[in-house]
Amino acid sequence: MIKKYRFGKPFPTEAVIENIPEAQGAMPRFAVDKNAHTFTCPLAKEDRVYGLGEQVRGINKRGWHYVSYNEDDPIITEKRTSLYATHNFLVVAGEKGAFGAFFDSAAKAEFDIGYTHADELKITAIDVDVYLIDGENIDDIVRQFRKIIGQSYIPPKWALGFGQSRWGYKCEEDIRAVAKGYRDANMPIDSIYLDIDYMERYKDFTVHPERYPDLKGLASDMRAEGIHLVPIIDAAVKVEDGYSVYEEGKANGYFCKGADGEPYVVGVWPGESVLPDVLSPEARKWFGSHYKVLLDDGIEGFWNDMNEPALFYSKGRLHAALEIAAEARGRNLVLEDFNKVTSAIGTLANNINDYKEFYHETPVGRVCHADVHNLYGYNMTRAAAEYFERYEPDKRFLLFSRSSCIGMHRYGGIWTGDNASWWSHLLLNLKMLPSLNMCGFLFVGADLGGFGDNTTEDLLLRWLALGIFTPLMRNHTTLGTRNQECYAFGQKDAFRRILGIRYSLIPYLYSELVKCAVRGDMMFRPLAFEYPSDKRATVEDQILVGESLMICPVYEQNAAGRYVYLPEDMKMIRMLAGDDYTEEVLPAGDHYIEVALDEVVFFLRKGHVLPLAKPAKNTSELDEKALQYVKYIDRDTEYELYVGKGEKKSELAGALKKVTVKA
Amino acid sequence: MIKKYRFGKPFPTEAVIENIPEAQGAMPRFAVDKNAHTFTCPLAKEDRVYGLGEQVRGINKRGWHYVSYNEDDPIITEKRTSLYATHNFLVVAGEKGAFGAFFDSAAKAEFDIGYTHADELKITAIDVDVYLIDGENIDDIVRQFRKIIGQSYIPPKWALGFGQSRWGYKCEEDIRAVAKGYRDANMPIDSIYLDIDYMERYKDFTVHPERYPDLKGLASDMRAEGIHLVPIIDAAVKVEDGYSVYEEGKANGYFCKGADGEPYVVGVWPGESVLPDVLSPEARKWFGSHYKVLLDDGIEGFWNDMNEPALFYSKGRLHAALEIAAEARGRNLVLEDFNKVTSAIGTLANNINDYKEFYHETPVGRVCHADVHNLYGYNMTRAAAEYFERYEPDKRFLLFSRSSCIGMHRYGGIWTGDNASWWSHLLLNLKMLPSLNMCGFLFVGADLGGFGDNTTEDLLLRWLALGIFTPLMRNHTTLGTRNQECYAFGQKDAFRRILGIRYSLIPYLYSELVKCAVRGDMMFRPLAFEYPSDKRATVEDQILVGESLMICPVYEQNAAGRYVYLPEDMKMIRMLAGDDYTEEVLPAGDHYIEVALDEVVFFLRKGHVLPLAKPAKNTSELDEKALQYVKYIDRDTEYELYVGKGEKKSELAGALKKVTVKA
Repeated sequence: MIKKYRFGKPFPTEAVIENIPEAQGAMPRFAVDKNAHTFTCPLAKEDRVYGLGEQVRGINKRGWHYVSYNEDDPIITEKRTSLYATHNFLVVAGEKGAFGAFFDSAAKAEFDIGYTHADELKITAIDVDVYLIDGENIDDIVRQFRKIIGQSYIPPKWALGFGQSRWGYKCEEDIRAVAKGYRDANMPIDSIYLDIDYMERYKDFTVHPERYPDLKGLASDMRAEGIHLVPIIDAAVKVEDGYSVYEEGKANGYFCKGADGEPYVVGVWPGESVLPDVLSPEARKWFGSHYKVLLDDGIEGFWNDMNEPALFYSKGRLHAALEIAAEARGRNLVLEDFNKVTSAIGTLANNINDYKEFYHETPVGRVCHADVHNLYGYNMTRAAAEYFERYEPDKRFLLFSRSSCIGMHRYGGIWTGDNASWWSHLLLNLKMLPSLNMCGFLFVGADLGGFGDNTTEDLLLRWLALGIFTPLMRNHTTLGTRNQECYAFGQKDAFRRILGIRYSLIPYLYSELVKCAVRGDMMFRPLAFEYPSDKRATVEDQILVGESLMICPVYEQNAAGRYVYLPEDMKMIRMLAGDDYTEEVLPAGDHYIEVALDEVVFFLRKGHVLPLAKPAKNTSELDEKALQYVKYIDRDTEYELYVGKGEKKSELAGALKKVTVKA
Repeated sequence: MIKKYRFGKPFPTEAVIENIPEAQGAMPRFAVDKNAHTFTCPLAKEDRVYGLGEQVRGINKRGWHYVSYNEDDPIITEKRTSLYATHNFLVVAGEKGAFGAFFDSAAKAEFDIGYTHADELKITAIDVDVYLIDGENIDDIVRQFRKIIGQSYIPPKWALGFGQSRWGYKCEEDIRAVAKGYRDANMPIDSIYLDIDYMERYKDFTVHPERYPDLKGLASDMRAEGIHLVPIIDAAVKVEDGYSVYEEGKANGYFCKGADGEPYVVGVWPGESVLPDVLSPEARKWFGSHYKVLLDDGIEGFWNDMNEPALFYSKGRLHAALEIAAEARGRNLVLEDFNKVTSAIGTLANNINDYKEFYHETPVGRVCHADVHNLYGYNMTRAAAEYFERYEPDKRFLLFSRSSCIGMHRYGGIWTGDNASWWSHLLLNLKMLPSLNMCGFLFVGADLGGFGDNTTEDLLLRWLALGIFTPLMRNHTTLGTRNQECYAFGQKDAFRRILGIRYSLIPYLYSELVKCAVRGDMMFRPLAFEYPSDKRATVEDQILVGESLMICPVYEQNAAGRYVYLPEDMKMIRMLAGDDYTEEVLPAGDHYIEVALDEVVFFLRKGHVLPLAKPAKNTSELDEKALQYVKYIDRDTEYELYVGKGEKKSELAGALKKVTVKA
């Protein structure tokens, strides 16, 4: 049961695709203050609050405040209140049942979830459609919500293969060396990512002529080895006379404009740049059509970046800051003067005041970017997806984005942005997965091993032991860090086996992902959703993966194992490789389990089975006809398996087949 | 058994006070590369590495690299390799026994503990005395080490009372309001801290004439309520004509000088400032004598800050950076040019190249600061302690420092610097305690509730539940954060009771601290030191406190409890207040225990007792003649109790008395 209430004049986000009329009467559940734009409801002691998708903190969001305003800041500490994405759906669950609430707004919104007052939830949002959802239980509420926002993006099956990435691969030789590194180490791989250096001076839809003299040839050679190249696309377009993308966009008015009507100039990787106005249908269509240049070279997947949009500076603010610095020359600076200089320079990047200075031309008229900020990444990714639909309608392409908003889940997946090589980010990765699923994002993953800072061998191994369960499984790191490829470390056998396990799991993972997309279900679920009356099931470092599994990664350095809570009897699978594992039924309750660095330990739920393929060197060599089933059943049991190649959209209808597994 | 090996020409740090002759022959245990200045030894799979005092990461330091170079950077994430202090003592322990190693150096040293290669420990240090220590077990090794570095600082007993601090209390009225806040809430308190705003324009040893027109009167009024004022002292001295501290120091050559022989000018709170040359005995004596100004006002305790030394900028580097910014005006900056500007401004603070540009006049001649950097905070604090000894020789003063080095443990305690209101910093606080003790620092504590960022009520409550066990128990926060005083939150009864528990524990905590100081023992010990053959005792989120207790704080938001591992049967004490608790013996093994936000749960070891006082509103009202004993004994048991007031050094000889507790 969904009811919609409108406050102010919300911009049409197109997050909801079902036509839901406005409800009559006052909105229940929340006390509404129309002047303060606040929505307040009490929280009982036992209430938990789930959702908000890509956000900091725990599965239960209670005890902190969150801001929905997409932000490019890679230092993800506990002080943070926003990340790269905005997913304004939450569920309040307690002893008196549960309800869902979606605050559909393109602008900034704030969620104070027992932060200011421990017993109060207060949301602040101007111009918002609020959808209140009642249901039988949390899963039902989520399913109703997912239905009104439309089916989630389904990637091609190869996109579930392992990918290697780094900002710092400079040229064709570097890419070939990575492919050789994995091949020589006998480690499976399906994709290698191209970060910004493949472009000519960071210009969108160009290829560096010296570094990649024949991208088509390279892509073809790689495909022959089962490897896809996946290039990055940045949001902003370099200002450069004669650069066709810039010239075309400028001539047609396709860039965001300042108050003066001229394209608004910001600084990003290429230096001075302008922002495609992806909220204009014409501009979006135009921007998306440029992906052709790479599609024609044999590229089948992309990652869209810098689309919060991230700004290193705006031209106006930069030069004002430089003046402040220039004025301070030669003076004895008292603290306030010194702070003025460092603050002027230090607040250039992603300064939200810049968002107030440029505009979009939308179907409902000219709007200030600040008021629709959260829609930018969504519509950049939509630009690509809508073009793919024109380019080859039935083909599944890989597409995921850094910034997003609910609605974008129909067009692509996400990676959770620039994390770091921190153990705490491994745990954050785990905790974020269910809330992302709640908000429609199924094809998700974090940069495994950590993007920023230097990883360690044990951190990467432990993180991969989680990453083998996430649909997007990519090892990615930034410029200047130590080598992070799996073959760069001493314990090669451990890496080889853990990557192999991933491939064994792909038939299960892809089947579960597709089913969840089709049915509006969650692939990653908190235990509390499945065992609502078990207070101990509020544990936050174990989650359910699909219908059959519970995972419990180790996320502390030097830990030889961890505690695990079983809400019911489960079968522990201790896996050394996809075809080398032991099974042991453990009774419900608390257990301390040892987990060596080169093992993956997870649990199979009672009454369930897990299909396993033989390890393969990439998805195209997966033998899905020869699956083994790990079982914890006492009678014949059906498992619904995706039996297709996962390359065509049209294949979906007949590709889910019920397989009977003998007890 | 301690052997000393010299490499290069180490600066005399005076960390070691026993005269240990250089050993003959090659140094065992480590492969030494004299050209690379490296000391390498293999690590077996089961080896653990303990020590390094104030550092990041776990109790077992394995799997990361650490740099000993005191650093003022409050963003303490997992990427960090150094903090505010340098404590170069470690113990390698494994199946073949243990050994200790102290790398006594005033300069930068690096510890790669299985980071580059998982199975190798590599230390890099130039000009170093290496002390290798063999012993029966880890405790014995630590005791031997502690003996050669001299007895640890013992604070007055009142310093174990609770203290409230904030950068932002501006004036006398603010201080009186805090005192009233605690009094009205009926919460105990022993001290209120004065941060930098009590000074006149941040000038050392001045008192702001309008904000604190009568500090002596204020101190006296507060003492009448049982509250001590504890002012901050910063390392650097403002450059200002007519300011007597500056004028005196300049006239006598007591400031660190640049290559040109002139005082080296840096920017800190007061703007342009100079650094007292605390490595010169004359300058140290001179600087210390200025504490008189506050002692004469009735002040009995100090915290020394900014003594890494922290530099916002050096005058030369600042003006060079401003030139770079000025040159960029009006240009279209490509990425490299833009980065040049932001980097020039962004790397001004604590730029280690500045440390190469000024000099100390020491008893062994003129030395560059970079080569003796780690000794600065140590000798600033020594300056104060040596003066207190002259001012009132028998009196115990409160004294602790942000920066330190081994050796300073004889002169004062430490707080662990500018942390943040992060749950991970609560855990870091716990994990750091044993290593600080190993290195001689017994009077230690972290900023409870967190210094940087906004705390939450639950975080502060959970952190206090750890803080009641640390000798320094101070709630401190930075400018601009939400109110963090215990009376500022809703659950006042919980705060009142938890602070009360602290006061009940003081007889035990002070007794244990004094005994550990006198005997060279550790007050906080990892379980692995006590139960060396129990592999599960490598658990890192529980530690022993003194001879009787094991603590296991909850450090996760929204957690209703936690797991605890008992290496042997222990008695669980579930405490609502110092005179309101339950006792329950739990068998050895794993347990999940519920811990409500307003409870403290800890364990009493078999064969031990815990003295408890009645809750009191400050230490002067503690009734130590009417102690209760919590017992887990089956026969009469002696406990050695400190029975004095803890105000005079001379009292110590007779103040430790054996009390027989009946079974």
